[in-house]
Amino acid sequence: MGAFSRAACQVIDRCRTLAQFTEEPGFTTRTFLCEPMREVHRELTDWMTSAGMEVLIDAAGNIRGVYPATHPGARRLYIGSHLDTVPRAGAFDGVLGVMMGLALVELAPRRFNYAVELVGFSEEEGVRFGIPFIGSRALAGLAIEERTVQDAIRAYGLDPGRIAEAQAGPHALGYFEIHIEQGPVLDSMGAPLAVVDSIVGQSRFEAQFAGAANHAGVTPMHLRRDALVGAAEWIGAVEREAKSRPDLVATVGRIEASPGATNVIPGTCRATLDVRSPSDAVRRSAVEHILECGRQIAKRRSLRFESEQRLDQPAVSMDESWTALLEEAVEKTGAPVHRMASGAGHDAMIMAQRMPAAMLFLRTPGGISHHPDETVRSEDIAAGLAAALEFLNLLEARVA
Amino acid sequence: MGAFSRAACQVIDRCRTLAQFTEEPGFTTRTFLCEPMREVHRELTDWMTSAGMEVLIDAAGNIRGVYPATHPGARRLYIGSHLDTVPRAGAFDGVLGVMMGLALVELAPRRFNYAVELVGFSEEEGVRFGIPFIGSRALAGLAIEERTVQDAIRAYGLDPGRIAEAQAGPHALGYFEIHIEQGPVLDSMGAPLAVVDSIVGQSRFEAQFAGAANHAGVTPMHLRRDALVGAAEWIGAVEREAKSRPDLVATVGRIEASPGATNVIPGTCRATLDVRSPSDAVRRSAVEHILECGRQIAKRRSLRFESEQRLDQPAVSMDESWTALLEEAVEKTGAPVHRMASGAGHDAMIMAQRMPAAMLFLRTPGGISHHPDETVRSEDIAAGLAAALEFLNLLEARVA
Repeated sequence: MGAFSRAACQVIDRCRTLAQFTEEPGFTTRTFLCEPMREVHRELTDWMTSAGMEVLIDAAGNIRGVYPATHPGARRLYIGSHLDTVPRAGAFDGVLGVMMGLALVELAPRRFNYAVELVGFSEEEGVRFGIPFIGSRALAGLAIEERTVQDAIRAYGLDPGRIAEAQAGPHALGYFEIHIEQGPVLDSMGAPLAVVDSIVGQSRFEAQFAGAANHAGVTPMHLRRDALVGAAEWIGAVEREAKSRPDLVATVGRIEASPGATNVIPGTCRATLDVRSPSDAVRRSAVEHILECGRQIAKRRSLRFESEQRLDQPAVSMDESWTALLEEAVEKTGAPVHRMASGAGHDAMIMAQRMPAAMLFLRTPGGISHHPDETVRSEDIAAGLAAALEFLNLLEARVA
Repeated sequence: MGAFSRAACQVIDRCRTLAQFTEEPGFTTRTFLCEPMREVHRELTDWMTSAGMEVLIDAAGNIRGVYPATHPGARRLYIGSHLDTVPRAGAFDGVLGVMMGLALVELAPRRFNYAVELVGFSEEEGVRFGIPFIGSRALAGLAIEERTVQDAIRAYGLDPGRIAEAQAGPHALGYFEIHIEQGPVLDSMGAPLAVVDSIVGQSRFEAQFAGAANHAGVTPMHLRRDALVGAAEWIGAVEREAKSRPDLVATVGRIEASPGATNVIPGTCRATLDVRSPSDAVRRSAVEHILECGRQIAKRRSLRFESEQRLDQPAVSMDESWTALLEEAVEKTGAPVHRMASGAGHDAMIMAQRMPAAMLFLRTPGGISHHPDETVRSEDIAAGLAAALEFLNLLEARVA
């Protein structure tokens, strides 16, 4: 068994160990600066210190360990992911990236010509306060002014007045994150790794069809203004539009027909729309076409169609030259090179606003995430560690 | 102003008077043997007694008044409709038929060669106990054994042990009911009246599509098993099937997609199906085709389709010779003759199991019923009274 395989087993062990620190016995539920996070910080402090790192908890609750460079005054590579979880989570979402970062430091045969700062972000999921990315926002120098967040920081024994000090220093070289894909793409391709080139933009809408509620028995088909039948036709159009272009997904996740009785024709039907693409132009054009379909269907059926935008978040690109370097690293290790967009948000999206960022995905068996059944293959972790260590080596040439 | 027009105005007055007796101030809500029903019974007893009828409340809570025939031992025509209402009802659903029956007795220039028994049924809507047709079931001689119903009868001061005595006697000639259409058909045709030839049969199902819930951002379109998109396609097929044949309606009134979050692909989608037709063969064939569509859509989309039948109620025909006689009566008054099926259940459906039954519909403006805005035109009531009185006259020839 090689060094990467041994390290991979230890990574899984450590992820499973941290998964036991939870707010909900029997499950892994660990929100922003909850009490079990102290145990995570204690374990991590031990492991990071043993790996030769100097460790602190910053004012946003991030745990940060610095592995020094070959020389003082060197630039600094940030490697990180998040330590908080969704309710009843798996053991690997976020935590895996931190454990693999630690393993990289442990595997490094020598110091690099840049320092490595490993960050376990305090908050990415947005579960506790509905505010995601608290940890990475602090490093990116973005203000964190929400009162509830500041109170939680104080309750944990930290000083919210010092959040500004948490931001990455002027010597920042860039940011590197390893994360499970959380989707089925790599698994369906039989590929262990992907280089993430962007994080998709997202539009969210609430749509409504309004017609007339009527008795299901006494109203002939030609005199109906059935809001649900209109919405159903539109859901078909949403799917057709999403399938018509690559790199586009669209989803109606919630639907409600009123009054909602078996024997009453629905008078109104509300539905949500979620559209994502790495191309903001593709996304906005798809949204326009989908809404126009809604208007046309409504007109033909004597219904009213209304929509309200709830989110219009642009796509975020990873740094192109870092992405190319990461691809080169993957290729050198002999793993197949695959590029993809991330359909979900990650800390890298925030860090990219401040410094060059690159991101590596690991295959998620069955695409199952945000669930206790979430897993990751040991051999994929080994492949990921090999590619990532190669990336750290290649990066040295850039700094020199 | 003719006698029918004056009687029509009084019918509306009386309906509005009775609408004030309610369990819910500001609305008309009057369920089976609630306290306000006593006031309805008191008013009606006065009016019916003044019209020369002998009045009693039977053990099922029906108010019944007999207008004697020209001779003793004569046969007996039952005329009736219901006095209970849905919550927040209009003033005419049910009550109109009783008030028009009373007006017919008042308008009759003489006694007929059969007695007329006017019945105000205690219960048709099924609101209080989820059990409809309590009043007409008692007259039809069907058992009423539900404990809750018997307790309510006792609480009203009646003896549930004597329900069997409420059934129609051996001299029953038949049953005649006048009711508002509660649908938009007559209004859209500009016709005041319709002769009901049948009450449609009804199938109800709960259907479910099951696929896989997944993240809406990270799951490409071709790897989805979206239960809601499958259900939406099926809802379109339900509409197409219903539109493909006359005298068929089909409705999906309730839908629920789970987990029901904006950013999660629905893993399951439950929906109700309600199919009605005056032809049981048409209805059952449509149901079979609709369910087969569900199975095919599911197969093509790698979903599972399941359905569970909740109701399979055959159509009930009105008596063909009585229906023809009622058409003849309508024609004689000069009103346009229109035949239609009732899409909703009525007391006539129960009474038809015991004796010949005929039913007359009055136009419902806008098709609005089960709502405080429910109305009926005074001139339609006058036309209905004229046709009904003609029917009573024509019926004499049959008895003679």
